[in-house]
Amino acid sequence: MVVATNSFPGSNGTTFSPNDILDLEKGDPLVFGAYWKKMSEVCTVVIKGWELMSYLSDAKNVCWFMLSEFGDAVRRLHHLVGNAVIQERYIVVGTGATQLSQAAIYALSSHSEAPQPINVVAAAPYYSEYPSEINVLRSKLYQWAGDAALYKKNEPYIEVVTSPNNPDGVIRQPVVKSEADGKLVYDLAYYWPHYTPITHQADHDIMIFTFSKCTGHAGSRIGWAIVKDIEVAKKMTWYVHMSSIGVSKESQTRAAKIIGVICDGYQNIGSIESELFFEYSKRILRERWEKLRKVIEQTKVLTAAKYPTFYCNFTNESSESYPGFLWLKCDESIEDCTSYLMEKLKIRARAGQRFGVGPKYARLSTIGTEDEFNELLERLSNAD
Amino acid sequence: MVVATNSFPGSNGTTFSPNDILDLEKGDPLVFGAYWKKMSEVCTVVIKGWELMSYLSDAKNVCWFMLSEFGDAVRRLHHLVGNAVIQERYIVVGTGATQLSQAAIYALSSHSEAPQPINVVAAAPYYSEYPSEINVLRSKLYQWAGDAALYKKNEPYIEVVTSPNNPDGVIRQPVVKSEADGKLVYDLAYYWPHYTPITHQADHDIMIFTFSKCTGHAGSRIGWAIVKDIEVAKKMTWYVHMSSIGVSKESQTRAAKIIGVICDGYQNIGSIESELFFEYSKRILRERWEKLRKVIEQTKVLTAAKYPTFYCNFTNESSESYPGFLWLKCDESIEDCTSYLMEKLKIRARAGQRFGVGPKYARLSTIGTEDEFNELLERLSNAD
Repeated sequence: MVVATNSFPGSNGTTFSPNDILDLEKGDPLVFGAYWKKMSEVCTVVIKGWELMSYLSDAKNVCWFMLSEFGDAVRRLHHLVGNAVIQERYIVVGTGATQLSQAAIYALSSHSEAPQPINVVAAAPYYSEYPSEINVLRSKLYQWAGDAALYKKNEPYIEVVTSPNNPDGVIRQPVVKSEADGKLVYDLAYYWPHYTPITHQADHDIMIFTFSKCTGHAGSRIGWAIVKDIEVAKKMTWYVHMSSIGVSKESQTRAAKIIGVICDGYQNIGSIESELFFEYSKRILRERWEKLRKVIEQTKVLTAAKYPTFYCNFTNESSESYPGFLWLKCDESIEDCTSYLMEKLKIRARAGQRFGVGPKYARLSTIGTEDEFNELLERLSNAD
Repeated sequence: MVVATNSFPGSNGTTFSPNDILDLEKGDPLVFGAYWKKMSEVCTVVIKGWELMSYLSDAKNVCWFMLSEFGDAVRRLHHLVGNAVIQERYIVVGTGATQLSQAAIYALSSHSEAPQPINVVAAAPYYSEYPSEINVLRSKLYQWAGDAALYKKNEPYIEVVTSPNNPDGVIRQPVVKSEADGKLVYDLAYYWPHYTPITHQADHDIMIFTFSKCTGHAGSRIGWAIVKDIEVAKKMTWYVHMSSIGVSKESQTRAAKIIGVICDGYQNIGSIESELFFEYSKRILRERWEKLRKVIEQTKVLTAAKYPTFYCNFTNESSESYPGFLWLKCDESIEDCTSYLMEKLKIRARAGQRFGVGPKYARLSTIGTEDEFNELLERLSNAD
C-alpha cells in the first residue's frame, strides 16, 4: 500500500505500518502547510464570479497577461529578501518554473540560424526532469546534451545553472569550458533564506524562481523569471502565449496575496503575531536536518553531503544549507541505493541515474509532511 | 488612443470618441461578465492560505493533477447539456484549450517512427493561432501543413476539426481526402447552446473544450479534453506534466464552482432566481446578432455568412447559430477588409490572411463588452 501524501499538510496523525511504502520520490513541499494553516485567515483569497475574466491583464506590460499586483508582489519580495536584482528588470510570469525554463531556452534559441539544435546542458547531478522536458517535442531549436562538465563541443550551447542545486543543494557556478558561444539560464528555485544563506544579490540575464519552493504552494503552478533584456522577455512572453495564452489569474492573485502577507510580516504591517515565514521555515528545516544528520551518522551504509557555513545577509546569522532534498550516497557494499531503500526500508526514492550519475546515489524529499518526515527518521534508523 | 477592453465586463459607461480605435481583434469573452456580476455571490470562491498546496490531486486518476471536483463538474455539465459523450471517457485538464490541443497532437505523433514530422492540417479559414502554436518549437514530431482541404500527400496527418469553426461559426466535418493514415482532433470550444444548436452528442476520440468560451472565464486558463483511449489520455497527461507539471488548482476549483452553479440552476438546486446561464447568454448573443445583421444589410460593402436553422436538443427550440465572431467579407470595391475597417471606421480586426484566406475577409469579436458592441454597431452603420 502506498500512503497518499496529498492530504492535510503537516501532521495529520497518519500512521505508517511497516509494510506501507513511504513515498519520498517527489518533492511535494507540504512542510510549509502548517505555517499557512496558522496564517490561514489573513491569506484567504476571495474571488467573485465576475472577477479575473479577461485574457488581458496589463496591456502596457511586456508580459501582458501578468497581473500588476503579482509583478508588484514579486518586486517587493526580492527587495525584502535581497536574493536577486529586480530594479530595471522585466518580470515574466509562467505556469511554474517548468514552463519558464522552456520559455527561456526557446528565447535563447529561436533566433538561431544553426542547422543543428542548440545543445542544452546542466552539470550532473542535474534536475531529473530537464532531459525529458527539453526533449519532449524533439525540437529543431534545442536538444538536451547532458552533463555540462563534459561538454567539449565547439558548438553553441545553453547551460542551465541550478543554484542551490536540485538534487544535491550545492551552490553552483557555470562549468562549461567550451570556447563556443554559450548562454546561461539560472534556475534559482531554492535560493531563499530557509534553504540556504543569502550571500549576495544574484544578477544574471535570466533568473527563474517558483512559488512552489518559496512558499510551498506547488498546486498554484506559479513561477516568474527576472529578465535583463527586453527582447528576451518578449520572446519568453511569446512562448507562454503560444503554450497556454498566459497564466491562471486566480493563481496569480493568490500568489500576490500570500507574498504580500510574508512581506507585511517583515515590515510590521498589520498585526501578525506568528513567527515570520522565512524564520519559521528555516527553523523547521534546520531541525529536520539536525535529526537527519544524527540518524545518517549512525547508519553504516549511507552518507549525505556536508554544506559549508555562510553568513546570510537576510537572517543576519551564519548557517549551513538545509536543502529540500536529502542526496544520499550508499557505501561500497550496496550497488543500487534506490533498490536498497525500497527493499530494506520500504522508502521510495528517485534514483541517481535520473540525475545523470550512478545508482550509488538517491534523492529523498525533506519537505514532506511531519508524519512522513518522522517515519523517514524511524526507517533510516534501521538502515545497516 | 486604444481603449482598453479589460476593465469591467459588460457596460461600464465607456464612451468612445471617433478617433479612438475600437479593438475587436481578440476574442475576449467579456459579454458574459454581466451575468456573473448578477451571480457573483453564489459563485464566489474562498481559498484559505493552506489549501491546494500539493502538486498532486488524485493519484488514482490517469490525470493525476486534476481535482476530482473539477472532473465531476465537467461530467455533470456534459450530462446536462448533452453536447458530448462523457460516459466511459477519460478527462484531461489543461491550461486552456491551447495547451490541450498541443497535448493531443503530441499524443498522436509521439509514437511515430516516421522520419518526417506528421502533418497537422485544418480547413481554411482555420483558427489563426494554430500555425504558430504548432510550429513554435519546430518539432520533429509534427508540423503545420496548412489547409486541410488542399491536403493531397500520401503521408500520415492529423486534422484538427474546429466545430463550430473559429472564425466563421460553421459546423464542420473532417475534409481531408487522402488515403494516408489520418487522426482527428476535435476542437469543440464553441459547441455550447448559446453559440449554436446542440443537435447531437459529439462522440469522437479526442474532443477539446474550454472554460474561456463556455462561461467567459478566459483569465482562468482552464480547458479539458474528453478522450476515448487511455493510452492517449496518458500521453496527453504526460505532455501537460512536461509542459507545466499540471494545472492551477485555484482555477480548477473556481471552474468547478462556477460550472456547479450553472448545473444547479438547471436542476433547481438552491434558489437561483436569475435567468439560467445558457438561456441568458443565448438571448444576449441572439440580440447582438439581430442588430448586427440589420446594420450589415444596410452597408453596401460588407457581408456576413448566414447560418442554417437547427433544432437544439438542449433549449428545445429551433434557431440559427450566434457565433462569437463576425466573419466579414468585403465587396469587390475593397481589396483589404482589415485596412478598410481600420482606416474608414477605426475598428481593429484580425485579417483573413491570418486564417489562411485572402484579405477580403476579416474577423471581429461579437463577445466583447456591451459598450464595445454598441460602438461597433454605430461604426458599422457608417460603412459604405
